[in-house]
Amino acid sequence: MKHIVIVGGVAGGASAAARLRRMDEKVSITLLERGPYISFANCGLPYHIGGEIIERDKLLVQTVEQFSKRFNVNVCVGHEVLSIDPEHHLVEVANGDEQYSLTYDKLLLSPGAQAILPNISGIDDPRVLVLRSLPDMDLIIARLRQIRPNVPIGVLGGGFIGLEVAEALRRLNLPVILIEAQSQVMSSLDPEMAVPVHQHLLEHGVELHLNRSLSRIHSLHDGLQLEYNNSQSVKVGMLICAVGVKAESQLAEEAGLELGINGTIKVNEYLQTSHSDIYAVGDAVQTYDWVLNHPVHLPLAGPANRQGRLAADNMLGHKRRFRGVQKTAICRVFDLSVGAVGVNEKTLKETDVDYQKVYIHSNHHAGYFPGASTIHLKLLYLKENGQILGAQATGKEGVDKRIDVLALALQARMNVYDLEELELCYAPPYGSAKDPLNQAGFVAANCLRGDDDMIYSEYVKDFVGQIVDIRDPEELKAGIISDSINIPLDSLRERASELDPTQAVLIYCQVGLRGHVASCMLRQLGFRVVNLAGGYCTYQDWVETLQEES
Amino acid sequence: MKHIVIVGGVAGGASAAARLRRMDEKVSITLLERGPYISFANCGLPYHIGGEIIERDKLLVQTVEQFSKRFNVNVCVGHEVLSIDPEHHLVEVANGDEQYSLTYDKLLLSPGAQAILPNISGIDDPRVLVLRSLPDMDLIIARLRQIRPNVPIGVLGGGFIGLEVAEALRRLNLPVILIEAQSQVMSSLDPEMAVPVHQHLLEHGVELHLNRSLSRIHSLHDGLQLEYNNSQSVKVGMLICAVGVKAESQLAEEAGLELGINGTIKVNEYLQTSHSDIYAVGDAVQTYDWVLNHPVHLPLAGPANRQGRLAADNMLGHKRRFRGVQKTAICRVFDLSVGAVGVNEKTLKETDVDYQKVYIHSNHHAGYFPGASTIHLKLLYLKENGQILGAQATGKEGVDKRIDVLALALQARMNVYDLEELELCYAPPYGSAKDPLNQAGFVAANCLRGDDDMIYSEYVKDFVGQIVDIRDPEELKAGIISDSINIPLDSLRERASELDPTQAVLIYCQVGLRGHVASCMLRQLGFRVVNLAGGYCTYQDWVETLQEES
Repeated sequence: MKHIVIVGGVAGGASAAARLRRMDEKVSITLLERGPYISFANCGLPYHIGGEIIERDKLLVQTVEQFSKRFNVNVCVGHEVLSIDPEHHLVEVANGDEQYSLTYDKLLLSPGAQAILPNISGIDDPRVLVLRSLPDMDLIIARLRQIRPNVPIGVLGGGFIGLEVAEALRRLNLPVILIEAQSQVMSSLDPEMAVPVHQHLLEHGVELHLNRSLSRIHSLHDGLQLEYNNSQSVKVGMLICAVGVKAESQLAEEAGLELGINGTIKVNEYLQTSHSDIYAVGDAVQTYDWVLNHPVHLPLAGPANRQGRLAADNMLGHKRRFRGVQKTAICRVFDLSVGAVGVNEKTLKETDVDYQKVYIHSNHHAGYFPGASTIHLKLLYLKENGQILGAQATGKEGVDKRIDVLALALQARMNVYDLEELELCYAPPYGSAKDPLNQAGFVAANCLRGDDDMIYSEYVKDFVGQIVDIRDPEELKAGIISDSINIPLDSLRERASELDPTQAVLIYCQVGLRGHVASCMLRQLGFRVVNLAGGYCTYQDWVETLQEES
Repeated sequence: MKHIVIVGGVAGGASAAARLRRMDEKVSITLLERGPYISFANCGLPYHIGGEIIERDKLLVQTVEQFSKRFNVNVCVGHEVLSIDPEHHLVEVANGDEQYSLTYDKLLLSPGAQAILPNISGIDDPRVLVLRSLPDMDLIIARLRQIRPNVPIGVLGGGFIGLEVAEALRRLNLPVILIEAQSQVMSSLDPEMAVPVHQHLLEHGVELHLNRSLSRIHSLHDGLQLEYNNSQSVKVGMLICAVGVKAESQLAEEAGLELGINGTIKVNEYLQTSHSDIYAVGDAVQTYDWVLNHPVHLPLAGPANRQGRLAADNMLGHKRRFRGVQKTAICRVFDLSVGAVGVNEKTLKETDVDYQKVYIHSNHHAGYFPGASTIHLKLLYLKENGQILGAQATGKEGVDKRIDVLALALQARMNVYDLEELELCYAPPYGSAKDPLNQAGFVAANCLRGDDDMIYSEYVKDFVGQIVDIRDPEELKAGIISDSINIPLDSLRERASELDPTQAVLIYCQVGLRGHVASCMLRQLGFRVVNLAGGYCTYQDWVETLQEES
């Protein structure tokens, strides 16, 4: 009888075990989990800290007893694999003081990843914590109970976990300082797209320390003194580190398996490691970003679950390919949703891909229906043929829907002309007859067809010519681009003669839509015109970005 | 100078006029609108009746003055086109008592559709109303003010408008009787999928009269006596007819233009009528359902807007194809969202398409995160290769997102194997690591690959063999399939010997997921097994359907 051993019992490992059993009633399955739980809701931890998920038990998706019984799997929690001997198909396991060997026919590694701690002095203070497991969460909650109120808590790292933890702490009414080494949170976003996130964090009482790296931590009797590399420092009651994770690949490495980028376990498209009887899935493995054709480490639950399922099939002799990832991701930041898919502009700039981008600031549903809120969307696509490369969006409602639709558009290798034709469901509570995604398609296709010509905010300072603000006078209170003249759109046709036809014209409105109308008009009247992509709204975010970077 | 005349100034007509001007500053554009407004929010009317959209002015998306000025269009409201002379490129127009002719180079017909009134005695009573235009809405609101409370209001027709109006009236705390000739509301759904909608309507105090056609209306001094064809009758204070619309094609017909199905104006893929200088768009035209390759009449705002844009380009000499429709639609029914895309099973049954279907009843986001609600999803696909044919969904949250993703999947000609690999955005407030759409893909692909075998509720009565309910005993309170025996999943492995190996086994659980686990197990133990698609949840809806049909 075939014996399959699985190392790690959370997303990838548990998915694989269940699938193995469904596909093969006879195979013998042993699941070794180092920690005390299997299949717990990793992604739910911050919400329990914040009190949003009230019962801790909700996080235990499957109990050992239930899982063992249902899937006839020998589940061993508290069993840690010490070494792998690929040649003899053997793992060495420790269970407390006991130690034993276990043979396997196929081995699946799903060891996950561990939180990274910066290598600085003072990081070993017990008031420096991470959030990766249930015990981590329990410790944070216990420490929070001991902490004095009004002493801020430091959160190091502005990625998903950092932001979720910051929100959780604010829910508990604790003062929070979010520290980020970059000039922006949420690195999957381009900097100008992170600006509304920064504003939202500030509105919700999170103190943002951007562009700050920790150089050392001083342990005080009543807290921690965090010293920044700019020699400033700040005092916190405790520090939660959320600066990312690294693959748990030590076992694999010691067993001589080939590693990938950032110390991940290297697997082929069938999730097979360099040893053909050893498979690996989840947060520990290198995967493949098919959009840019390069290896990535993407420790997310969705791919881990799907990989577990595929690896199970493949260990049973099938040949099912994991297609790679496109980095679809979302994070709730208080009332804001922040989503992204595919490649961002920062990354594109490092390649020779010839891309374009559009910005849409549009209501998430019909503007005349109560509760409409703005979605800020950035879409990147190939200049050559309009193929979609990636997108980012923020907003209070409907962000996840647009990112998911674009995730599918990306998966289907669609282009901006396809977005023009999207037939999405429309009723006033849900969308608009011309959805923001249709609009993104319209704007992009207009540019590719040569029906409009955009200028991006970053090039405005280099523009030589006349800058025309076509908004209504009352809109100018929000700010203007310097040296612009104001000719409201509805009088532009009659006042076009005020412009110098020998000079280029830069048109801008609030979001780019009226700018398109104006730029079409002036172009046909003989002017050389560019329309500011995303209008003043994007421009403002851009200016803010420059300030944050400096 | 080229002169383009547009007949009808709402969705299609207004979109076309604006696009024409953006693309061509020189063309002369006349927009003739019979009614008092252009570009009003048709889809918002029911929500103003219900008081959800408080200000009537919000429904006026563009004013005549603003539109005329911005787009340099000669907008004539209250101007009705009496006839078209295609040969001489002439339209005859009436403006009150005045009458005049207008020549055109290109003519765009966007006359819309009108509400259908059943041809029965008493239908001309002034208390019989329809809802199609702002004046219609104003009249309904005025009449509602005069009505005596506690006398129910009849709504005839359980389509989008009928349901939206019923909800609006209930918001005003008025008693409502919804009358529908079919055995279900919302004909884009298959009958079993409409069951939760019926339940929801009842929960919100709508009295449902299904399977009732009106045979006549008696005018009483204090209301209307509605007589059904089953000789029952009911008294209402007023009746709002929402039994559908018919294309406004009389003008086109009289001008000798070719008509399509249901009296629509026939257009080619470039939105050109049978006369090459006359284009037509919107609710009046025949369009093309590309999923089933047949002509349809789909009077919805989304296609109308996109058609207007394309027709404008084509009238200016481009050749841009309208790709046809896939019938994406959604309706809010109180707290429920009801969406559909593509073809439904009722329609498939009338074809020789070899299809399969799956049902998913799944949380709209992670179950451990507060507020999870169930999405009921039905997916139809080609048996041959898994290509997606259509889907329907109901639920309180996240329905629009799944329908939109499937709309794109349909547009991209994707199959159920692609759904397995969907990489949608996941964080606990938004979805699950295995989204309901991934799950739909898993279930369908399992069947197509031969890893599971489903039985549909409608065939359970013909099943010969053992029916095994594998739910936990406390779940059986919700009801069971008669003649089933209960063996909970977690003891099935040890109790399998209780089953007769010579007889087929029908497995069911609540939604089909555990049934899959059980059926895999028993199949490998040598049994012939089928798993009930959608589990007891779908079965219950099916039983309910039979009762409604009888």
